[in-house]
Amino acid sequence: MRRLALVSLCLTALLVSSGGPLPAQDGDRGGPDGLEDRYREAAGRIVGAALTDDEGWEDLTYLATVIGPRLSGSESLERAIDWAVAGMKEDGLASARRQPVMVPHWVRGEEGAWVVSPGPEREMRILGLGGSVATPEGGVTAPVVVVEGFDELERQDPAEVEGKIVAYAVPWNGYGSVQRYRGAGASRAAELGAVAALVRSATDDSLSTPHTGALRYDEDQPKIPAAALTVEDAEWLKRMEALGQEVTVRLEMDAETLPDAESANVVAEIVGSELPDEVVVMGCHIDSWDVGQGAHDDGAACIAAWRALAIVQDLGLQPRRTLRVVLWTNEENGLAGGRTYREELGDDVGNHVAAIEMDGGAERPVGFGFGWSGVDYADTAEDGEPADPTYRAALARLREIGSLLSGIEADQISVGGGGADISPLMREGVPGMGLRTVGENYFDWHHTDADTLDKVDPQNLRRATAMLAVMGYVLADMPERLVPADAGE
Amino acid sequence: MRRLALVSLCLTALLVSSGGPLPAQDGDRGGPDGLEDRYREAAGRIVGAALTDDEGWEDLTYLATVIGPRLSGSESLERAIDWAVAGMKEDGLASARRQPVMVPHWVRGEEGAWVVSPGPEREMRILGLGGSVATPEGGVTAPVVVVEGFDELERQDPAEVEGKIVAYAVPWNGYGSVQRYRGAGASRAAELGAVAALVRSATDDSLSTPHTGALRYDEDQPKIPAAALTVEDAEWLKRMEALGQEVTVRLEMDAETLPDAESANVVAEIVGSELPDEVVVMGCHIDSWDVGQGAHDDGAACIAAWRALAIVQDLGLQPRRTLRVVLWTNEENGLAGGRTYREELGDDVGNHVAAIEMDGGAERPVGFGFGWSGVDYADTAEDGEPADPTYRAALARLREIGSLLSGIEADQISVGGGGADISPLMREGVPGMGLRTVGENYFDWHHTDADTLDKVDPQNLRRATAMLAVMGYVLADMPERLVPADAGE
Repeated sequence: MRRLALVSLCLTALLVSSGGPLPAQDGDRGGPDGLEDRYREAAGRIVGAALTDDEGWEDLTYLATVIGPRLSGSESLERAIDWAVAGMKEDGLASARRQPVMVPHWVRGEEGAWVVSPGPEREMRILGLGGSVATPEGGVTAPVVVVEGFDELERQDPAEVEGKIVAYAVPWNGYGSVQRYRGAGASRAAELGAVAALVRSATDDSLSTPHTGALRYDEDQPKIPAAALTVEDAEWLKRMEALGQEVTVRLEMDAETLPDAESANVVAEIVGSELPDEVVVMGCHIDSWDVGQGAHDDGAACIAAWRALAIVQDLGLQPRRTLRVVLWTNEENGLAGGRTYREELGDDVGNHVAAIEMDGGAERPVGFGFGWSGVDYADTAEDGEPADPTYRAALARLREIGSLLSGIEADQISVGGGGADISPLMREGVPGMGLRTVGENYFDWHHTDADTLDKVDPQNLRRATAMLAVMGYVLADMPERLVPADAGE
Repeated sequence: MRRLALVSLCLTALLVSSGGPLPAQDGDRGGPDGLEDRYREAAGRIVGAALTDDEGWEDLTYLATVIGPRLSGSESLERAIDWAVAGMKEDGLASARRQPVMVPHWVRGEEGAWVVSPGPEREMRILGLGGSVATPEGGVTAPVVVVEGFDELERQDPAEVEGKIVAYAVPWNGYGSVQRYRGAGASRAAELGAVAALVRSATDDSLSTPHTGALRYDEDQPKIPAAALTVEDAEWLKRMEALGQEVTVRLEMDAETLPDAESANVVAEIVGSELPDEVVVMGCHIDSWDVGQGAHDDGAACIAAWRALAIVQDLGLQPRRTLRVVLWTNEENGLAGGRTYREELGDDVGNHVAAIEMDGGAERPVGFGFGWSGVDYADTAEDGEPADPTYRAALARLREIGSLLSGIEADQISVGGGGADISPLMREGVPGMGLRTVGENYFDWHHTDADTLDKVDPQNLRRATAMLAVMGYVLADMPERLVPADAGE
């Protein structure tokens, strides 16, 4: 499956190199200006290599097709982790290793929901929410109370909710508007005596496609089972209620939470030539939900980050600081990977000069968003961007680097960004970046059986690889840290 | 649920009427020219009434939400038929009646498919194909042979197909390119000894959404069970084969074909004032597959045709010929409704001056396609349209009528058209028309759980209603038949 990168190296040489030996670039590192000029040639070679890379697509094909979905606690996740470590080593990334992490182990089991009345019995397509408890033996069968949100729930007579199934047929107003019902809907319904909760999937477009995701139980409330409805069924329940038709549903879920399981972050790096203790980390999460193939979320990102590091190394571009890739585990239902990574750094977290995450799918990328805990976003200058001079200087630097990606139209650097796995680092003041895409269809596929390889365009994978490699390399190699070590204190 | 059309009549009067009594229009029927001028006022009143109609949306809401899917043989179909007859009568269409039809009675039963190896067992989302036999007790479990089409199937060593499940992972090249595998794939695989067939769903865009549809068994081959795969799983199987991974699937289907059941076409009409024996028929099919709600296919069309007739009658526009609406039964898996309708006409089929069908969904309509069995489409004039003078004259007439719909941008009259239910009439020389839409997403929803009311825009239902009413009324009222009675003989 894995091949030497010789072919793409040769192609790259034809495309962008003058044919001579790799330039040392060491002679011109003093000044703060001109990152574009300083890194133009290196970036050209990186972009050329990434755009002609086939190994990334082969790797993503294997990950999505043969390994498939990889929820925390599953054998598939551990298989993916072992495969990535071995593959990185084959790629010459000798430092590739597991960083052990204990992760939650939730198992979906058998599940289903049926409309038992009125009309002929009909199965609804659902997905239990991650972390949900099971239904009692035989399932729960109860009339449905339909609400469009918490406000409407609070207005219900508790006697009318007691013993019922609450269905959140929430209007779509962006991902967050629905996601909060997925997280908190079960406990809020349980507080009023509901026996189960059904939540509209967090998507706008649906082809009868339920979207899973994690719930959070309020420890003060009874834990009731909860599942995601399709948009179609949420809309149907709302209309049935408007027509005065009481719907009774039977929900059966075998879900269970097992003892925590052993997992790991995958870590590999190119040790810095001058400042090896200073680190630029870039990554993704190797776990996924237990549906689909985790192709966009977040498989493609893992392959892009891995290939980015391999390409920088293959080109002989050892940066001044350490450039590290981490494929974090357990982003979807616990964030144990990101937390463990930060905890094990201890006070060394201050040596992380930047963290980059790609976790918004592999649609056509457009640039990066930049976030930093030291800035007050509300205090803006005339241009609408933060007034903080440290932030503005870093943003300007990032835009210089971004301009090296203008050839692939991925040079937009915007205010605000990050990622779940790097959030424990960002809380400590590490500047963070999130790779941004056009964001056209990602939430149609997100957490569903439709997050599959056929939705990924190999060219976009190559573009993302190029972006991570250029951004990671330049941040690790440029003379100053992106944000001074004492800024924001 | 049903209201008098008084509100929309009043609104219509405000919008398009001069306020006086209805014009008789009888004084100017002699010449063949100027349909636009002759029918401008009537068309304006019809369009105005249709665009302000709320009853159609209320009716479609009830049909899709409360009655739901309605496969031939189901109680839901008969409930829909009885409801439509009663509703039409409430709307003042006193002639509304059932025309009895015997229909096939296929029942899906429980069904499922699981990947049993390699990797952890995983359920694939499937839909059994209409007419399929059941699997034997315990299902069939067998390795999968993946082919991209019949050519590749024929190239297989029969020993390699014997006892296997054939999966047609057909590349998408338009609906017909995949549909033929749904129809004939099972028997072609059975011929080589396969024990079951899986067929990629006939769609381009998928969110893990299987599409059902009818298969046709070759009576000379063993009948093997067959189901539709999602695009995602078809692509996955293809990639697994390319990676040298043999996939074993367990398919379980309880489908059965029961004795034929009693059903009916719904028929209603406005009897012609001068030529009551001459008929313009317009309609749709009242049955649907047993998934989703049959909202686009073909519920919206039934409501549009019904409302079109009601609006013409409410406006007091009695045409010279009879204008009839038929909601045919059993289009999806037998066409018994369309066949029975034609058979019962006997030689009177020659009095059908035109047949209009709407069966391509209720997206934004753009016009009609015109088909006639008397024309040789291959013999074209310089403009690329058929050279046949009778056809060209009729096409020109239709474009005059179409121009009355330019205000709702539904005035395109194109060459070729018809519909399954009216095909038995068209084979006898009846000129046929099919309502055409932009056709952007119809096949994403077609024959799936996603064919639901939330996909229908009420304004498009109103536009289609206006189109059927104007086209039907003018064809029924205009001086000459669209095509002379002796043409094409």
